[in-house]
Amino acid sequence: MALLTQLGKIAGDHNVFSSREERFCYAYDGTYHLHLPDVVVKPQSVEQIVKIIKLANDSGTPVFPRGAGTGLSGGSLPVRGGIALVLTDLDRILEIDDANQVAVVEPGVITGQLQAMVEERGMFYPPDPGSLEVCTIGGNIAECAGGPRGVKYGVTGDYVLGLELVTPTGDLIHTGGKTIKNVTGYDLTRLMVGSEGTLGIVTKAILRLIPLPKAVKTVLAVFNDLLQASEAILDVFRSGVTPATMEIMDAEAIKCVIEQAGAQLPLDAEAILLIEVDGLPSAVEEELAAVAESCLRHQARSVETAGTAEERNLLWQARRAISPSLVKLKPTKISEDATVPRAQVPTMIRRLQHIREKYSLNLVIFGHAGDGNLHPNIIADERDAGEMARVEAAVGEIFQAALELGGTLSGEHGIGLMKAPYMLAELGAPGLAYMRRIKQSLDPNNILNPGKIFSS
Amino acid sequence: MALLTQLGKIAGDHNVFSSREERFCYAYDGTYHLHLPDVVVKPQSVEQIVKIIKLANDSGTPVFPRGAGTGLSGGSLPVRGGIALVLTDLDRILEIDDANQVAVVEPGVITGQLQAMVEERGMFYPPDPGSLEVCTIGGNIAECAGGPRGVKYGVTGDYVLGLELVTPTGDLIHTGGKTIKNVTGYDLTRLMVGSEGTLGIVTKAILRLIPLPKAVKTVLAVFNDLLQASEAILDVFRSGVTPATMEIMDAEAIKCVIEQAGAQLPLDAEAILLIEVDGLPSAVEEELAAVAESCLRHQARSVETAGTAEERNLLWQARRAISPSLVKLKPTKISEDATVPRAQVPTMIRRLQHIREKYSLNLVIFGHAGDGNLHPNIIADERDAGEMARVEAAVGEIFQAALELGGTLSGEHGIGLMKAPYMLAELGAPGLAYMRRIKQSLDPNNILNPGKIFSS
Repeated sequence: MALLTQLGKIAGDHNVFSSREERFCYAYDGTYHLHLPDVVVKPQSVEQIVKIIKLANDSGTPVFPRGAGTGLSGGSLPVRGGIALVLTDLDRILEIDDANQVAVVEPGVITGQLQAMVEERGMFYPPDPGSLEVCTIGGNIAECAGGPRGVKYGVTGDYVLGLELVTPTGDLIHTGGKTIKNVTGYDLTRLMVGSEGTLGIVTKAILRLIPLPKAVKTVLAVFNDLLQASEAILDVFRSGVTPATMEIMDAEAIKCVIEQAGAQLPLDAEAILLIEVDGLPSAVEEELAAVAESCLRHQARSVETAGTAEERNLLWQARRAISPSLVKLKPTKISEDATVPRAQVPTMIRRLQHIREKYSLNLVIFGHAGDGNLHPNIIADERDAGEMARVEAAVGEIFQAALELGGTLSGEHGIGLMKAPYMLAELGAPGLAYMRRIKQSLDPNNILNPGKIFSS
Repeated sequence: MALLTQLGKIAGDHNVFSSREERFCYAYDGTYHLHLPDVVVKPQSVEQIVKIIKLANDSGTPVFPRGAGTGLSGGSLPVRGGIALVLTDLDRILEIDDANQVAVVEPGVITGQLQAMVEERGMFYPPDPGSLEVCTIGGNIAECAGGPRGVKYGVTGDYVLGLELVTPTGDLIHTGGKTIKNVTGYDLTRLMVGSEGTLGIVTKAILRLIPLPKAVKTVLAVFNDLLQASEAILDVFRSGVTPATMEIMDAEAIKCVIEQAGAQLPLDAEAILLIEVDGLPSAVEEELAAVAESCLRHQARSVETAGTAEERNLLWQARRAISPSLVKLKPTKISEDATVPRAQVPTMIRRLQHIREKYSLNLVIFGHAGDGNLHPNIIADERDAGEMARVEAAVGEIFQAALELGGTLSGEHGIGLMKAPYMLAELGAPGLAYMRRIKQSLDPNNILNPGKIFSS
């Protein structure tokens, strides 16, 4: 195969993999889908990436860029064979610039490692996707990853100031820079963030850092009534507090972590809120009191607060136990992230509960209630065709509910492969055509991550 | 003229203007350039805009969208005649949604009026361009306007969650929505913000609001040494404080406001910093003390603080007096916004001072030092050809200095007409080509604001 030889010449034979076993290692992501690439390449430099993309563009070979493969929408799956371009070897933190509060990193840097390094220097990189101990900044940028802290601090896109990228035709270009303000032409930086590797390969990122909050406190509030919990959420924001996190778990999620992980929670609770406030110590105390008051005003049956790292950890245990608990029930986990305006969270939760009953599915509801970004998770068995058909119908209804409530298909996981069929419902034909024209103009041979975002 | 008749049929004859006097009223902006449109139209509805754009696209007539005409880069000037599309009659605040903390507005809403209205309800729309009492949200979105509060709160783009827009081919599409998180396909919202009316006409905007800070305090610090003032700036950020504003004035700016506006400032000072902190009262006190300490640590000769609105007003008087004072000297004001990384502010100021001496120009330096967004203002007389040639050379050197220091041509004014020739220097040929392909794909007949961003 001529392609193999050429890739070997560019990246070195030992960085090109073509056996079935090796290709299988890059055929998965965080979804339950599998797609084998024809070949796997691990480039060692930007120059090699430029050459690989030029080769692919000239030969019409699809390229599927990939970080740690933790994505939840199929964004990195090599759905048309071709080249799996694995960027994990470009993993240097090139610079931490204290005076300008920015970091310059390569795409393969692990998010959690960057966070630990900047926190040692009194700075903070807030985006905190669930997989932060393994996922990469490149993947975070591709999907515009979020996390619990999004409600106060925003998502990955809010921290990307500039990029170096290889375009689909093999040019190396730069967008943005180290300045916070930049209105020199179109905002290509933000266009690239969340474009899921369809418009270019990020080879370097300039990330904004902020001062590390000096204090943080955590509140766990237990409610007998889901509606009251939802009212408490709105009350917190109305009081002028923007918490650092505002997580919710519904009764099914609570039941699951009690039964599967032995969490110390009341089995009859209808909702739990896990709320953090951070900032200056004096402000944190004031906000903590306001949060507790909002919860008690809406009949929280208990409000626990934690100040030490250890106590916080205890409170977060139940929240963190959800995903591991779920996969003990059944093997196939479908994690959605349909997002609604904050005030629609109670209505959305009721609709999700209705969908759960209608299709008799294991559906638990948790997620980032403060920004309306819920994570309805369905746990099923992909070998059970009848159940998977019900899952598919339920997922369609989840999206329909989100759109009817003024929301969106995806808050932080991206469209990838799995939500592409629903794009038309959210954007309409002219909106989708406007988006597609951008893709066509920048990637005329459709080599970069084809089959994603736009369904064929 | 057939175009006139057709426009009259669409928007009503009384909303179409074609006399020389009327056209002159829409031939200017905040720069010193003048370009007469062939015809002026004030549409009264979105439907009329759709029809006008379809007519223009079919007939190849250039369309120049326009708000209040306060732009500082020539973004709204009708450089090729055609239609001046004046959006000021679409000026309704359609919704203020307290629960979701968003406002839905038409493009002609005046920024300051929106701010006043949301502040009455305990919410805050931070972007604060200098012209906020007259400029419109539509114009702010087109240029991604900033202001002093950008250093803490970001710029217009950070507050636009969704848009309704008419595409260059006359389709009505929607981007984003009321949710804070949205990764459904490309971030068209952010692509539109700052695209200077070249990719679509914004007809509705969904804006994010935040809680109104409960307290604000202001510090005016006077320095004998510009370098010490610059060090104080970095020291403030190093201490973990992100001030709401961090404004600087150099000796020439100080001299100008003393002589022209009678400001009560020491004539021999080399720099003044105007710093605001806001948030919870307890946090504000703590941050205020840290700011004062940073200033004193770097030899501030005086540090005045103000708490009441009246005292704050007094401190801001000198800063606000700069622009009016400047135009008393000479008629032609060139306001730049080249931006550098924060740590490069002292070097940038030295280079600007050197440029001032080299070209014997009235150049004063002030602006948003906290985010590196300085405003070197040159005051000249456009009837003096020799002086204007020196201005042009000086402006070129200002851009060169900003780029050499890792900065950008424009932090908040946009590229418009005046900086288009310098785009290549910042972006390089492949970067500029990538950007231009987006324009060509979305506006194939090049009817929307042609001649802007990209020089022909």
